[in-house]
Amino acid sequence: MKKRSRRRTALWGAGFAQPPGPALTRLSVSHPFDRRLAREDIAGSLAHARGLAAAGLLPRKDLRRIEKGLARIEKELAEGKFRFTDTDEDIHLNIERRLIEIAGESGKRLHAGRSRNDQVALDLRLWTLGAIERAESGLHDLVRLLLDRAEKFLDPAVVVAARTHMRSAQPVLLAHVFHAYAEMLLRDLERLASARLRAAVSPLGSGACAGTTLPIDRKKVARDLGLADISANSLDAVSDRDFAVEFEFVAALAMVHLSRLAEDLILWTGEEFRLFRLSESSTTGSSMMPQKKNPDPLELVRGKSGRAAGDLMASLTVLKGLPLSYNRDLQETQEPLFDAAETLEVSLDAMRETVAGLVLLPAAERAAIDSQALATDIAETLVSRGVPFRRAHEVVARWSQLAADSRADLREIAAVEAPALGSFLARLTLESAVAHRDLPGGTAPRRVRAAIARARARLRRYARRAAPPR
Amino acid sequence: MKKRSRRRTALWGAGFAQPPGPALTRLSVSHPFDRRLAREDIAGSLAHARGLAAAGLLPRKDLRRIEKGLARIEKELAEGKFRFTDTDEDIHLNIERRLIEIAGESGKRLHAGRSRNDQVALDLRLWTLGAIERAESGLHDLVRLLLDRAEKFLDPAVVVAARTHMRSAQPVLLAHVFHAYAEMLLRDLERLASARLRAAVSPLGSGACAGTTLPIDRKKVARDLGLADISANSLDAVSDRDFAVEFEFVAALAMVHLSRLAEDLILWTGEEFRLFRLSESSTTGSSMMPQKKNPDPLELVRGKSGRAAGDLMASLTVLKGLPLSYNRDLQETQEPLFDAAETLEVSLDAMRETVAGLVLLPAAERAAIDSQALATDIAETLVSRGVPFRRAHEVVARWSQLAADSRADLREIAAVEAPALGSFLARLTLESAVAHRDLPGGTAPRRVRAAIARARARLRRYARRAAPPR
Amino acid sequence: MKKRSRRRTALWGAGFAQPPGPALTRLSVSHPFDRRLAREDIAGSLAHARGLAAAGLLPRKDLRRIEKGLARIEKELAEGKFRFTDTDEDIHLNIERRLIEIAGESGKRLHAGRSRNDQVALDLRLWTLGAIERAESGLHDLVRLLLDRAEKFLDPAVVVAARTHMRSAQPVLLAHVFHAYAEMLLRDLERLASARLRAAVSPLGSGACAGTTLPIDRKKVARDLGLADISANSLDAVSDRDFAVEFEFVAALAMVHLSRLAEDLILWTGEEFRLFRLSESSTTGSSMMPQKKNPDPLELVRGKSGRAAGDLMASLTVLKGLPLSYNRDLQETQEPLFDAAETLEVSLDAMRETVAGLVLLPAAERAAIDSQALATDIAETLVSRGVPFRRAHEVVARWSQLAADSRADLREIAAVEAPALGSFLARLTLESAVAHRDLPGGTAPRRVRAAIARARARLRRYARRAAPPR
Amino acid sequence: MKKRSRRRTALWGAGFAQPPGPALTRLSVSHPFDRRLAREDIAGSLAHARGLAAAGLLPRKDLRRIEKGLARIEKELAEGKFRFTDTDEDIHLNIERRLIEIAGESGKRLHAGRSRNDQVALDLRLWTLGAIERAESGLHDLVRLLLDRAEKFLDPAVVVAARTHMRSAQPVLLAHVFHAYAEMLLRDLERLASARLRAAVSPLGSGACAGTTLPIDRKKVARDLGLADISANSLDAVSDRDFAVEFEFVAALAMVHLSRLAEDLILWTGEEFRLFRLSESSTTGSSMMPQKKNPDPLELVRGKSGRAAGDLMASLTVLKGLPLSYNRDLQETQEPLFDAAETLEVSLDAMRETVAGLVLLPAAERAAIDSQALATDIAETLVSRGVPFRRAHEVVARWSQLAADSRADLREIAAVEAPALGSFLARLTLESAVAHRDLPGGTAPRRVRAAIARARARLRRYARRAAPPR
Repeated sequence: MKKRSRRRTALWGAGFAQPPGPALTRLSVSHPFDRRLAREDIAGSLAHARGLAAAGLLPRKDLRRIEKGLARIEKELAEGKFRFTDTDEDIHLNIERRLIEIAGESGKRLHAGRSRNDQVALDLRLWTLGAIERAESGLHDLVRLLLDRAEKFLDPAVVVAARTHMRSAQPVLLAHVFHAYAEMLLRDLERLASARLRAAVSPLGSGACAGTTLPIDRKKVARDLGLADISANSLDAVSDRDFAVEFEFVAALAMVHLSRLAEDLILWTGEEFRLFRLSESSTTGSSMMPQKKNPDPLELVRGKSGRAAGDLMASLTVLKGLPLSYNRDLQETQEPLFDAAETLEVSLDAMRETVAGLVLLPAAERAAIDSQALATDIAETLVSRGVPFRRAHEVVARWSQLAADSRADLREIAAVEAPALGSFLARLTLESAVAHRDLPGGTAPRRVRAAIARARARLRRYARRAAPPR
Repeated sequence: MKKRSRRRTALWGAGFAQPPGPALTRLSVSHPFDRRLAREDIAGSLAHARGLAAAGLLPRKDLRRIEKGLARIEKELAEGKFRFTDTDEDIHLNIERRLIEIAGESGKRLHAGRSRNDQVALDLRLWTLGAIERAESGLHDLVRLLLDRAEKFLDPAVVVAARTHMRSAQPVLLAHVFHAYAEMLLRDLERLASARLRAAVSPLGSGACAGTTLPIDRKKVARDLGLADISANSLDAVSDRDFAVEFEFVAALAMVHLSRLAEDLILWTGEEFRLFRLSESSTTGSSMMPQKKNPDPLELVRGKSGRAAGDLMASLTVLKGLPLSYNRDLQETQEPLFDAAETLEVSLDAMRETVAGLVLLPAAERAAIDSQALATDIAETLVSRGVPFRRAHEVVARWSQLAADSRADLREIAAVEAPALGSFLARLTLESAVAHRDLPGGTAPRRVRAAIARARARLRRYARRAAPPR
Repeated sequence: MKKRSRRRTALWGAGFAQPPGPALTRLSVSHPFDRRLAREDIAGSLAHARGLAAAGLLPRKDLRRIEKGLARIEKELAEGKFRFTDTDEDIHLNIERRLIEIAGESGKRLHAGRSRNDQVALDLRLWTLGAIERAESGLHDLVRLLLDRAEKFLDPAVVVAARTHMRSAQPVLLAHVFHAYAEMLLRDLERLASARLRAAVSPLGSGACAGTTLPIDRKKVARDLGLADISANSLDAVSDRDFAVEFEFVAALAMVHLSRLAEDLILWTGEEFRLFRLSESSTTGSSMMPQKKNPDPLELVRGKSGRAAGDLMASLTVLKGLPLSYNRDLQETQEPLFDAAETLEVSLDAMRETVAGLVLLPAAERAAIDSQALATDIAETLVSRGVPFRRAHEVVARWSQLAADSRADLREIAAVEAPALGSFLARLTLESAVAHRDLPGGTAPRRVRAAIARARARLRRYARRAAPPR
Repeated sequence: MKKRSRRRTALWGAGFAQPPGPALTRLSVSHPFDRRLAREDIAGSLAHARGLAAAGLLPRKDLRRIEKGLARIEKELAEGKFRFTDTDEDIHLNIERRLIEIAGESGKRLHAGRSRNDQVALDLRLWTLGAIERAESGLHDLVRLLLDRAEKFLDPAVVVAARTHMRSAQPVLLAHVFHAYAEMLLRDLERLASARLRAAVSPLGSGACAGTTLPIDRKKVARDLGLADISANSLDAVSDRDFAVEFEFVAALAMVHLSRLAEDLILWTGEEFRLFRLSESSTTGSSMMPQKKNPDPLELVRGKSGRAAGDLMASLTVLKGLPLSYNRDLQETQEPLFDAAETLEVSLDAMRETVAGLVLLPAAERAAIDSQALATDIAETLVSRGVPFRRAHEVVARWSQLAADSRADLREIAAVEAPALGSFLARLTLESAVAHRDLPGGTAPRRVRAAIARARARLRRYARRAAPPR
């Protein structure tokens, strides 16, 4: 997109003898990033113009010229032919200026009863709603994939060592692990749904901060924009960026979830943990070391969680201590919002591509699970037979130590120390241990299957909302 | 609370030849802060014991001894007689140890089918639910006070200059300003209600990470605890701290809102802005300067917003990149949670005390509002008479500049420049300007009155949930 | 800059049957931002090539072709004619690819004994050194301006009310206030000088992580690049981003200082505090309100402090918990570095422009200083006459209250209550109060003059280092 | 420490008709945390009293009574007999109040020429200097231990696989790895030394914000306190917390370094990576799983890096946008400072204990290093023989793929494909690969030995400053 030659005055500049200084211009010009709001700005202007017309403040003929002008601007933007100017520092003034070029006096009627303060608040809300949809779509697809993959690992059941403190803990179904991550991301979907309710509110009609004296029907304008509600207080409406910060929080938390999955996948696909192989298309090579195939997408996603946290912190710090109502500081909440949304989107895509390409190693190549992972099963069996748990724990802890010292199978040690457990121990395998954890949320196959089914049902609820990525 | 002499082994220590080293002990001992969870821990243990009994894993006699023992421990804690030990590093083991001292073998039966991993997850969830209630209660009271005060300023209507960019913008009702802050805090109440849904989930039965082999009825245990749901995946259940981070986010955002109110009140009560006087009980003096009465509570609340942001940042960073499932790093999410909750509580109290003590200065002492604040009214009147807004804006901008240069009243300049506006300008006052912003969310008295009424209705919905502070 | 058509394989891709997937590509491609490193990358490649040649690993003829090729690439980049490709995801591979196109087999010899891991570490260090220079230059100019302006306010001395807790405290010279900000920024200059020492270290020769088997003279290569030192450990060298984070910290703290100055200037130039007028070129207007001239650069600078804090937090979070040595997560430390540097630069420029344009209001228009600001002087005079300070404080506090209640001049009240102080009080003025604070760091004119002189001397030390902005 | 019954008025309260409200008191009372400053406060008061005496403002007899009184207070504090009161909200007033109880009118003379604003700034600076010393001591000891352990692994040389992207990259000496971490921490020591210069500045004499009218010799007072310099501007002096934030930054970055070491150690001591065994005293057990020995100190240190980042974030946010000079918000920078210092200290101790207890597994038990780690050596040998590196990389990449596909030793594949390399390949071992990386910073034994020696020399420089932990 090209730049127009510099004009002398901004649309707001009639009362000014001097133009903004060069450093203020550099600081102030926001169209390089707020042009992301172009589509929303045009949608908002159309709705506002119709509201003015309905209120008798805009003759039909002017409305039509505005509608045609905005349509033409949308086309110019789409085709990269729109020429931006720094004199009109932001997307809003650039579009209004161009509209006046196209539609003449009619264009000059558009901004009645409106300020950039309520205009940008609307644009950001509409953009946030779009970002929520795209995030929902990405989350939806990744959750579905995780559940699909989980289901594949159920029959025949793949058993792995669940870890606590990064140490082998107890045997679980691999499906259970994948479902765990699906649960985290389902919560993120819930949070987005909740955030949407607070974002889908029209601030139009709030003017600069006190409303307008012109008789606009705010609810009708909101309905035209597909927004369920209107803001209740004009001062709050122009100074509120909660909807953006809330989205950034949900994005930051979702990115933390992805960073955890990335960490697990980096380990599981490594030479040491030996569980999966990455698709080659999810790796890159080294410029120096010929043998390398590195898990770059996983590392990048893990790293990008820091970025999302930084975006959130930036916005909170910007808002801290701001007096009512609109302050220009608020412009600094825009880029964190854009960045958080784009970071989450690209990370979800990359994670989906990577998870889809995971190849389970054949059983023979996978790292073995030590019999120590069965220690809790033995202790709980003692409990079933009447031993207080603390005693059972002590006894099995000693057997476990014996087994470790002699590098023996824990079951064999236990069978020697407690012959009465013999038949139980003979039947105790990783698979039986898994099967015995047969309570809701547990890792027994039927429980995991049921949990996956319930997760799918929850997911379907969100699916209805999700829109295609933009 | 006193400390017991050091024992040789922790409850988990049967398999250990060596005790933890001194630095690990210093690092690891958490009872100085996690004793906040004592009440929740006891409630959880009671429910778990009843669950074991219902499953036939705990004889009735043992259950009764456990119940009595836990009741005694609760009393000891309340009376400051409970003796903590560092060998049992946390509140959970301290209570279990004491229970065994009191209830003997019965006490040793309690921990069957449970790990500290699901236990602490439960305790933190119960504590978070309590923190949500206290935050709701504090928010509720402050919102009600803001609305009460707003209403008082409606009749006779107090008009002030709304500011944008910290500069006088347009006249608004003082009630409108107070209502703006009420709206912000109502959103925080909404977010808390949403966060509660995700917190009120029982992880008990998830064990260390894979569930338990003992046939506990998880849903019944959850109902006993007043929790609506149970966790769907044991790995996720023990490693999930989303509920804490989400609360911390809501607290951080609410603190940002309070920091904004604090900033405004610091200015409004100062010598320059001259709107309110602070109650003397909301000020403190200087150790050196005899004349000073400083707005300390407001400054402290403003400052504490940084603390809440830091808590949130700490938790997100702790969680970043953690593999499944439980990792001890999670302990580091506790203090930020406690701190965020306590920061919000004390800040809400202080803000309520301060707002309650605000004394509006008599009209004669209040800073005057310049006629320039009426510029938009004049421009919008031109629009009503058919002038395109951009032209109207340009014209009035020039009149405004003239008025500024000659230190004249803007209305007089306008009347000279545009005699046709004479009768309109003669009737244009700050009060009439306010009255003309007569659309929903605007500052006309009837609109503000309606907005306050709606805010009260929303508040009542939350009131039903709010519990007294603990 | 245009993009080349997609090639089949990256320079590292010989062992790969599959290209990176589309989402990995989107995630991985960094040339849109790391092209900022182009100049540093070329400088590093030149030095490396000369090192190879000196070690006998690169024939002279090949060296010359590489030198010519890199010079041509630099020109292409400067002229916007360089064509980037996504297959070679970053600036380093894009340049190497293009070099091979230009210089053929000679170009293929360049990367011997080098990895992108030490290459990007070098480029980032060189870029950081440039960013430090630009920040120093901007800080230097702003400090000098603050001191210049301070000096102008010394004769005749302009006295203002210093504030604590945003309330009038004691009279000070306006010069003293400007000097206070100069001191803050001088500390930032000191921190940058310290950070430079740790940045000016060459990692070249560290290879991928273990060094190289080729006999390169690392110190000579470093000297060619103007770097004082070489890294001491190859694993550390490729995984270290401390230099970037340290710069980001200094930038964040400097931005906090600017945010404080911005806040003060917003207040001092407002209708209420009435001290300065902003140059019109440091304000912008409202799209709706014709009368407005808003202090936008100050608000934007204040807001941008949040951005710098976010950048720092992002980097710390990225680095947290990363194992040795290079991990791709490190790429996510680049954009925060770039953003922090660019934020600080533009903010310093804007602040300089704004401070330069401040117009002191004529004395008659400035807000008056209340006599209460003299309370400490009276108390300290009592001390000089032998009264214990705590008693003096109590006595004057009561006089102060009396003066406030009766809206009287504090000196008159004191003169009535303590006739012995009469002659002192008769001479007590804002000017005499200022003059009496005659100790180093105090606000007496000769002390402020001396402090400014010393600040200028410190500044000159930094000036020698500062380079022109790039 | 017990609390005294509530008094009616604070030391500053003579002019107040009303005491602070209950919520303000809760918010305002800081002695529960700022009592950490007691020793520094007493030291500062002693120096100030001597300064007053030297200026003729405090009779010798009063000075002696103040000295005796402060000594007694120090003893009471040390013995836990000091009784704190909430009326005097902070440590400063509590001590002054007690001094007046002990020393009567003499005590009332102490606060002349001083405000809590310069007093607390001094106390925090002295405390920060102590924290720097303790951090230096802890860093020093850990660096020395890392270097000692590194040296032990040199003869016979232990070779491990260095990782990039968490994948085996190239063979390095284990000593090289330990030295890498020593280098990171040496940089932290450098930063602390730099931070100390800016902390060791006396603000005393700055009063509330404008200095004092009493003729105190500020430089002499500073010398008495062992401080090298005095602050240059009183407004800046009372509002500056840079020294605290800078320390917090260094602590946060050092904690990031420890988090990285913790992550590596968690992996290296796990079942999969099989390099070290943790001392049992650096592990704790599970309440449920009898077999577990978990690396808790490492996890806690890793987690605590989040806390340190949160502390830094909190302080930056508190300071953002504060106008000159002292604002009560500054109180909120204290707890982050205390927490950052204490977090770093305990983490350094725990890390030292853990590293000291690491037991290297016998060679036979350690994970093997795949021959693929030698790929770069082969490619660089081709370069030595005249092959352009890019070609060499391509060729070896294909051999590497062949070796991977056929699970063969890379050397064997290479020998088949390039018989000319036969004798080189026959001599190519992990040990020879390490030895060939023979350049400064490389992993050849003599280079690592030299690097360790240089690190020791740097460390000795810092050792001279380090003081014993408090």
